[in-house]
Amino acid sequence: MARDSAVLPLAEFREWFAERHRTERAEVTRIPFADLDGWSFAPGSGNLVHRSGRFFSVEGLRVSTRSDPAASWSQPIINQSEIGILGILAKEIDGVVHFLMQAKMEPGNVNSVQLSPTVQATHSNYVGVHRGAGVPYLEYFTRPRPGGVLVDVLQSEHGSWFWCKRNRNMVVEVTEDVEVRDGFCWLTIGQLQELLRVDNLVNMDSRTVLACVPFDGTVLGGDERDDFCGALRRSVVGGGAALHTTSGLLSWFTAARSTKLVDRWCINLEQVTHWKRSRDEIAHEEGKYFTVAAVAVSGAGREVGSWSQPLFVPVGQGVVAFVVKRIHGVLHVLVHARMEGGLPDMVELAATLQCAPESYEGVPAERRPRFMEYVLNADPSRIRFEAMLSEEGGRFMGAVIRYLVIEAEDDFPVDVPEDYAWVTVGQLSGLLRHSYYINVQARTLVACLQGLWGGER
Amino acid sequence: MARDSAVLPLAEFREWFAERHRTERAEVTRIPFADLDGWSFAPGSGNLVHRSGRFFSVEGLRVSTRSDPAASWSQPIINQSEIGILGILAKEIDGVVHFLMQAKMEPGNVNSVQLSPTVQATHSNYVGVHRGAGVPYLEYFTRPRPGGVLVDVLQSEHGSWFWCKRNRNMVVEVTEDVEVRDGFCWLTIGQLQELLRVDNLVNMDSRTVLACVPFDGTVLGGDERDDFCGALRRSVVGGGAALHTTSGLLSWFTAARSTKLVDRWCINLEQVTHWKRSRDEIAHEEGKYFTVAAVAVSGAGREVGSWSQPLFVPVGQGVVAFVVKRIHGVLHVLVHARMEGGLPDMVELAATLQCAPESYEGVPAERRPRFMEYVLNADPSRIRFEAMLSEEGGRFMGAVIRYLVIEAEDDFPVDVPEDYAWVTVGQLSGLLRHSYYINVQARTLVACLQGLWGGER
Repeated sequence: MARDSAVLPLAEFREWFAERHRTERAEVTRIPFADLDGWSFAPGSGNLVHRSGRFFSVEGLRVSTRSDPAASWSQPIINQSEIGILGILAKEIDGVVHFLMQAKMEPGNVNSVQLSPTVQATHSNYVGVHRGAGVPYLEYFTRPRPGGVLVDVLQSEHGSWFWCKRNRNMVVEVTEDVEVRDGFCWLTIGQLQELLRVDNLVNMDSRTVLACVPFDGTVLGGDERDDFCGALRRSVVGGGAALHTTSGLLSWFTAARSTKLVDRWCINLEQVTHWKRSRDEIAHEEGKYFTVAAVAVSGAGREVGSWSQPLFVPVGQGVVAFVVKRIHGVLHVLVHARMEGGLPDMVELAATLQCAPESYEGVPAERRPRFMEYVLNADPSRIRFEAMLSEEGGRFMGAVIRYLVIEAEDDFPVDVPEDYAWVTVGQLSGLLRHSYYINVQARTLVACLQGLWGGER
Repeated sequence: MARDSAVLPLAEFREWFAERHRTERAEVTRIPFADLDGWSFAPGSGNLVHRSGRFFSVEGLRVSTRSDPAASWSQPIINQSEIGILGILAKEIDGVVHFLMQAKMEPGNVNSVQLSPTVQATHSNYVGVHRGAGVPYLEYFTRPRPGGVLVDVLQSEHGSWFWCKRNRNMVVEVTEDVEVRDGFCWLTIGQLQELLRVDNLVNMDSRTVLACVPFDGTVLGGDERDDFCGALRRSVVGGGAALHTTSGLLSWFTAARSTKLVDRWCINLEQVTHWKRSRDEIAHEEGKYFTVAAVAVSGAGREVGSWSQPLFVPVGQGVVAFVVKRIHGVLHVLVHARMEGGLPDMVELAATLQCAPESYEGVPAERRPRFMEYVLNADPSRIRFEAMLSEEGGRFMGAVIRYLVIEAEDDFPVDVPEDYAWVTVGQLSGLLRHSYYINVQARTLVACLQGLWGGER
């Protein structure tokens, strides 16, 4: 597993990427809703929609929890029913698989340009509603060569911000020569894993696709002198030492999905309660969760030179953490069967902790997320991974999450609350062949985990 | 694979079942909506709801197909968001696994009593909204013993009649003695497969659970003198001879799900167009598809002695058929990636043909379902399985479908339209470990297929 590549060594990548940053970065300005071009609040529903009826709309979600009438709420939500393609082109160069990545501007990114998949296209993009240029390399994904598809699976996105959003995560391997267009470069998985440790560099769309790549355990050298890396290697490669059988795990997950008695409806934005619309934002009356804002974008090298659009702006710093623990010498990850109102099937496996801690200031301890104090107070020596990474910059503004992998002390209990389970990395990879098992934040951590072995670099 | 059992030989079963039929059958009478007890059309929405807010409601579905504006419609639909348990208890008796089955009355059944799983319970049932007795054997499924769960997966139900309905399909094996209560009996899988050939005997809930049972190919004797049975055995047991790799199949399925550009909304029943409500039914203005009706039920030995409820009444005789073909000596099933507006993720794998042929009288050939003429005109010598089987009698009235397995001639093309694919029975079984791959009608045929080998009985 090469951590660098002669095709584009990381030192050169950094220069190239800095240059892309200079040429591609855009001017993004907050504007009042009334100044949006092509977007307006529809009469009757109050939904924020584009005049074409495409792209996405901001509507409402109502969630009602039967077991806990207090746990009912309504909120704005992004409705984007069409399925986009997040596709990475792969090619063996000098005997090592390289992935074709793109330096891409997204208006909500804190640093404008991040590293994205080869193709990141909504259906509107490629049927031309964008009135933009054709999407480069798209044909490799819409008409892949037989046998070349390494990954092809629908996965959900943020269940608190999207109504049943899902994208097609793809990796397609080519054998022929491919022209490297301006703004694209070939990187190995080892290089990408190094770059995942850099704040706000590898974008969310890249991370979710990388998480779905079937991990070839045989390439792991595995330094057995390092217990953590040996335990991670055994967790990836598998071999029967998982705490739960996969059948047992699936049964636990089915039970978790079945017993959350939650109803949810897509409602009109106008019917959402406790949210207030002003000239330039829609905000919760307590200032919590997120706001809906509007931006104007200009000066980018993107398909369409300048445009305006709504974005969701999270309130508070998100934290997403895997607590991991060696059990019988195999690294296990503590996952949480978590309900999110907008997920396609409402419950997916999430990280051990996924929250914005400041939302819980003043909330009694028993109503705070489990393991929040544990994660926030973790001894720095237990942190195996940490980076600030951005969520989808095409829909969210400044949505940066602190991602962590924390190795628990030996006395951390194996017995966990019923909504939690210890799973191996191999089991997570197996579930990622199928849709709607692992949520998008946990997928980021799966991608990051795979870079933590200590074998040959 | 024993086709009979000494525990309750089929000859005795038939007597026992006839007796249950005499004691359990109920009086079911069509009534006007106004005579429903506890059910009414809600002011404002016009939805048909129960006063408890539980059970289910009849609401509206709107479907809009972007690629074909003519393919947009609205219709009544059953909204039953809670997840029920369909559970079969299994136990090895005299060295052979037996399943505990129940003779159960459902108001919509053409013959009142059919053979159902051990437990068939909505959440309302077991939290007591039904005001009925406790559900026998339920504790085996809500608190299964560790290691005893053989099947535990959420599966969808009829996507044309239900809004995102799903049930938990379970098989739990016990080792201890279990009291056989009145109305229950132990049967082997071999006996059940014999009974699946009997019209309207094994109910839909039993069939969907049986389809999910991991099929142990090693028990198949496989009479190699019979080419069909040998090909079926190789299809079940697997071994690399499938036309498509499972990865290729998953990719094809992902593409099928991604490219159906369909939007759908749950709407109020009052907003449904082209349907008319009269005193005693809601019907499509052309008399097509189905009607919504109300019935009074009395005299049954059920949890609640008498009650009334709405039911959907299909129009026309449904036909569901697998076309199967030997490819390289392995039996392959032709499945269809089919969109149904009410399915949880809209597209699942369906049988080769699933339709009510009389709906297409007068419709030009190019707009009729593919393979409809082929199936309806099949030479009787090619029919490997045929039975009239009932759909869920708790929600549908007289919903009897003609289920068929037809072996295609050698010259039937291997190349099929892009929404269709040839898969092995083993591949179908693998997909049935996960949710929302195979629709409920196709699951019935999977259960029936498994009984068609010609090995030792």
